[in-house]
Amino acid sequence: MLSTYRLVIDCPDQTGLVAAVSQFLAEHGANILEASHHTDLQLNRFFMRHEIDAKSIAVDHEDFVNAFGKVAERYDMRWKLSDSEKNANVALLASRESHCLIDVLHRWHTGELRCNIPCIIANHETMREYADWYKVPFHFIDFTDKTAAFKEVERLLEHYQIDLTVLARFMQIVPDHLCKKLAGKAINIHHSFLPSFAGAKPYQQAYERGVKLIGATCHYVTSDLDEGPIIEQEVLRISHSDSAQDMVRKGKRCEVNALANGIRYHLQDRVIIHQTKTLVFA
Amino acid sequence: MLSTYRLVIDCPDQTGLVAAVSQFLAEHGANILEASHHTDLQLNRFFMRHEIDAKSIAVDHEDFVNAFGKVAERYDMRWKLSDSEKNANVALLASRESHCLIDVLHRWHTGELRCNIPCIIANHETMREYADWYKVPFHFIDFTDKTAAFKEVERLLEHYQIDLTVLARFMQIVPDHLCKKLAGKAINIHHSFLPSFAGAKPYQQAYERGVKLIGATCHYVTSDLDEGPIIEQEVLRISHSDSAQDMVRKGKRCEVNALANGIRYHLQDRVIIHQTKTLVFA
Amino acid sequence: MLSTYRLVIDCPDQTGLVAAVSQFLAEHGANILEASHHTDLQLNRFFMRHEIDAKSIAVDHEDFVNAFGKVAERYDMRWKLSDSEKNANVALLASRESHCLIDVLHRWHTGELRCNIPCIIANHETMREYADWYKVPFHFIDFTDKTAAFKEVERLLEHYQIDLTVLARFMQIVPDHLCKKLAGKAINIHHSFLPSFAGAKPYQQAYERGVKLIGATCHYVTSDLDEGPIIEQEVLRISHSDSAQDMVRKGKRCEVNALANGIRYHLQDRVIIHQTKTLVFA
Amino acid sequence: MLSTYRLVIDCPDQTGLVAAVSQFLAEHGANILEASHHTDLQLNRFFMRHEIDAKSIAVDHEDFVNAFGKVAERYDMRWKLSDSEKNANVALLASRESHCLIDVLHRWHTGELRCNIPCIIANHETMREYADWYKVPFHFIDFTDKTAAFKEVERLLEHYQIDLTVLARFMQIVPDHLCKKLAGKAINIHHSFLPSFAGAKPYQQAYERGVKLIGATCHYVTSDLDEGPIIEQEVLRISHSDSAQDMVRKGKRCEVNALANGIRYHLQDRVIIHQTKTLVFA
Repeated sequence: MLSTYRLVIDCPDQTGLVAAVSQFLAEHGANILEASHHTDLQLNRFFMRHEIDAKSIAVDHEDFVNAFGKVAERYDMRWKLSDSEKNANVALLASRESHCLIDVLHRWHTGELRCNIPCIIANHETMREYADWYKVPFHFIDFTDKTAAFKEVERLLEHYQIDLTVLARFMQIVPDHLCKKLAGKAINIHHSFLPSFAGAKPYQQAYERGVKLIGATCHYVTSDLDEGPIIEQEVLRISHSDSAQDMVRKGKRCEVNALANGIRYHLQDRVIIHQTKTLVFA
Repeated sequence: MLSTYRLVIDCPDQTGLVAAVSQFLAEHGANILEASHHTDLQLNRFFMRHEIDAKSIAVDHEDFVNAFGKVAERYDMRWKLSDSEKNANVALLASRESHCLIDVLHRWHTGELRCNIPCIIANHETMREYADWYKVPFHFIDFTDKTAAFKEVERLLEHYQIDLTVLARFMQIVPDHLCKKLAGKAINIHHSFLPSFAGAKPYQQAYERGVKLIGATCHYVTSDLDEGPIIEQEVLRISHSDSAQDMVRKGKRCEVNALANGIRYHLQDRVIIHQTKTLVFA
Repeated sequence: MLSTYRLVIDCPDQTGLVAAVSQFLAEHGANILEASHHTDLQLNRFFMRHEIDAKSIAVDHEDFVNAFGKVAERYDMRWKLSDSEKNANVALLASRESHCLIDVLHRWHTGELRCNIPCIIANHETMREYADWYKVPFHFIDFTDKTAAFKEVERLLEHYQIDLTVLARFMQIVPDHLCKKLAGKAINIHHSFLPSFAGAKPYQQAYERGVKLIGATCHYVTSDLDEGPIIEQEVLRISHSDSAQDMVRKGKRCEVNALANGIRYHLQDRVIIHQTKTLVFA
Repeated sequence: MLSTYRLVIDCPDQTGLVAAVSQFLAEHGANILEASHHTDLQLNRFFMRHEIDAKSIAVDHEDFVNAFGKVAERYDMRWKLSDSEKNANVALLASRESHCLIDVLHRWHTGELRCNIPCIIANHETMREYADWYKVPFHFIDFTDKTAAFKEVERLLEHYQIDLTVLARFMQIVPDHLCKKLAGKAINIHHSFLPSFAGAKPYQQAYERGVKLIGATCHYVTSDLDEGPIIEQEVLRISHSDSAQDMVRKGKRCEVNALANGIRYHLQDRVIIHQTKTLVFA
């Protein structure tokens, strides 16, 4: 797989922006593999992502960053340059449900998802067998004392230098301070089409309301439960003949696919969070 | 098109039910074209719909009804036998948006939707040109005085002996007593994937929340706004590049299709309302 | 999970059929959990599936079969009565691609798919690690000599008394005589939306044709390659920015879901093959 | 609605391309509303579309074209600059089916589709009533003598200075020389998910093959029937209970939506035809 740099920018919209960035890239010999722009006319804000063949750039990552810093300053850019060779450290938080966990593990194991998975943290022992097979360290934490438990979660995330925390059907509510600390770095999969059916037992809620489609939502974790910026959603048609249990079974494919896309987009720097929403250059 | 009877039943579940009904049908020589059953194990309730070739029945509609009444009583059935030849009278209530109105009119005009449309009622003059072309009486009502206006709506529904009232993007809130009077006989199309974004400006709400799919919901009208039993829902993928205006444009196809299916299912007696939900034998 | 009998019938259409069957079921005290009918008006043929609570029946499976045989004869029925407690033996045939194989294994392992998986047969060693973890005997067969190889496949299917053979991205063409022998008992997953792009490299074909959606098809194996009765299909939207490799990656979810549904429907006796097509009482 | 210029480019890929174009745009004060790029790595070819606020450009359309011509030459670009104020002339060719025709007419009438529709040409009189209502000149042509008929079609297209010819379920095969003359300027809607079921009676073909989804394809007309570059496709789930007639009815929504998107994309210069495929900057 090609080694790439990803340059992700957002800033107030103004004439000459694209010219300045592309001029800079051309001067450094950058071979642009993918470019995506978006101007939000309502916000008067500009968003941009470039994926560049790393080999095409004469200078190294640090020099590139320093040089681009001047352009960025001129246009008041929020920006980042990431290197596809530097794999993110991803922690998986799980409970007793296996479908999301092993789907992520399998995509990682087969190389589809480029990252490191240095640990799985769980409030049940159930997933240990999968962790062992994939040779990923498994940390069981007793959540009877939730404060102590989340302290341990926090310690592990630091210990493993985690860049992205994935709540793969982890059924515990993350405390406020940790949500803030992990802002933009923690992804949850919720088993409903948000904002419908936030909170507990979404399939049961869907069954009771009698909706004709069910879904799943992958979003960033924030202090407001199930209110974080949405990255990806999937839906599936159901009928009156589906019980709440049928929905649980059928809905898994929505959860698995929304989560896989969400993680992929995040790891490839395809997501820009702006206020309460995301832009996804899919 | 074949002339049919539709026998729709629901009752407490018990052994021998299907046998009793099908025995009755066989004795009357009924040629069953379509049969659908559903047992709700949680409610211990049985639901059934038969579509029968009318010509295969020796007796007439009235005798059939009388004879079946005895079976129905034995099993404590809620039931109805309708005749595909007796077209329902459908009133269309509209405002300024044309897409749902003309889609319904076109399906009716081409014979896809079998019903009578004796009147269109609107709180704006805008749709009159379409009504005229389709030669449907058009009643403009001034909604400055809402109480008087809805009194006039009610009068017209009675005058035209309306069986089904369709709110085809009619942007007025139907008063409580009229909702109750029209229970199970009035269908609304709401331009969101309910229960998300009930109430006003759902596309703007969807835009602000940053959802990745938008939708529309066809449901029965009840006193609780946008809370009635859902008949049909449609969704459509969008992205960050869609403004609220784009959603308005794109969402129309969801509204049109959900409403067309909803009306069709209702007119063909494919919907059974049970408490706050529907069964749809699509 | 409830223990059930599944009674699946098809026969020439005639009045009294449903009455006869439901009368029989009522007399035996059958508690019907699910009933599905379909009359093909063009073929004048009737199709029916019942799922019955096994405990509600007084007599045992054999007596039930004998008794129903008389009804069946009267109406010239093709029929079968299966017992949900008797798990089918399913053989998985694999090559080097893991996604379909491990999805089936995972659904089986978690109890979602009720069957036995006594063996995996493969023309590569790659999948052995998964087989070992799931503790399923793994048989590698060298396909240099295809005739000998398929003889060995055939021997293993007999040895393990296989009821259903699943080609989970098994990239070998099954010889004519074996297709015939396994008629209605072998399922393949093809990675295109058939009948488009049959044969080799369907994603490359899709890329070259420039279609805007890709898909996967789960079908019964017949002597005509990729021409067997279709059980399930899935599609997914793509765009010009997707390379053939992207399609390979994205299409996996279609393959996995179409195959999982196909197997599930078959194992639950929800599929009736009629000539070149299927009825699926999903 | 904003008045815009659309600059659409494709050329051999090379470093500095984006810089050159965006530099040019910045120098002319262009306010870029939308920008889309794509590099086809396999073809080593670059594709680009810009939508620019026309008011932001100091010079007029002609001067802009002349000035950009020099940039274009340097990079061997195939390009065009169109003006959103100059509405294309669109001819609709129809037969006896109304759904596609009136959907296009309605979108045009309500301003959703910005274009002129100076004429409808048909081989049946059936659609005249719609044409009259929309006040569009209706030309009935007798197709008994196909050569003469298509000569008349050609004459009308010239007479009305047609930019885009839309075959809205026009059931006649366009002769080779006219296909060539209209290359890239004629759009057809085919009622199947191509390449499956090309040619006559696609729903009947779909019914016979027993597919589980049906669809529609909007594509450019070429001499090879139903083989032209695909612009848009839609699909819909069906089941064994759908007759070929049900498919005809249900499939209409696919046809209508695929055609509406196809026309919209074309009119907004969002489609680039490259060899046998399209890029669609949707």
